[in-house]
Amino acid sequence: MESIPLYIEIIGLIAATLTTASFVPQVYKIWKTKSAEGVSLTMFLMFFTGVVLWLFYGLYLQSIAMTIANVVTGSLSLIIIYYKLKLK
Amino acid sequence: MESIPLYIEIIGLIAATLTTASFVPQVYKIWKTKSAEGVSLTMFLMFFTGVVLWLFYGLYLQSIAMTIANVVTGSLSLIIIYYKLKLK
Repeated sequence: MESIPLYIEIIGLIAATLTTASFVPQVYKIWKTKSAEGVSLTMFLMFFTGVVLWLFYGLYLQSIAMTIANVVTGSLSLIIIYYKLKLK
Repeated sequence: MESIPLYIEIIGLIAATLTTASFVPQVYKIWKTKSAEGVSLTMFLMFFTGVVLWLFYGLYLQSIAMTIANVVTGSLSLIIIYYKLKLK
């Protein structure tokens, strides 16, 4: 693949910051309340699998924004899955 | 940009299906309970803006998977934002 021009990568990085940041309050709430009752394990396992596939897709496209976004979102999902299993 | 090979696009479409589908229960819950109390308007406005930027990014990359994923996720977010404002 061709490399992605900087101005496009900047749009991607802003997108990554916004979509990832909007996910943080949920992780924080679960960590703070030590309760993951409101979220479904199945949903997060599906989401996590999807994020891993997006990561492969982003790596193929040599997309810096998608790679960063999916590594961060995937790690946050793993924290939620951990709490979900631990607090069960 | 070069076009993305089919097997990579299939990985992206599976990723899109999983991450979008894991978002549907939240929209359904809000629609069913007619309550959007559990979600933050600021968070969804940030998320929606991020999704719109991902859509531009995906269109530039000529990514079918990213285009579909962000159109669907963006529409679902708009429904949540609508309920959030309407039920205020």
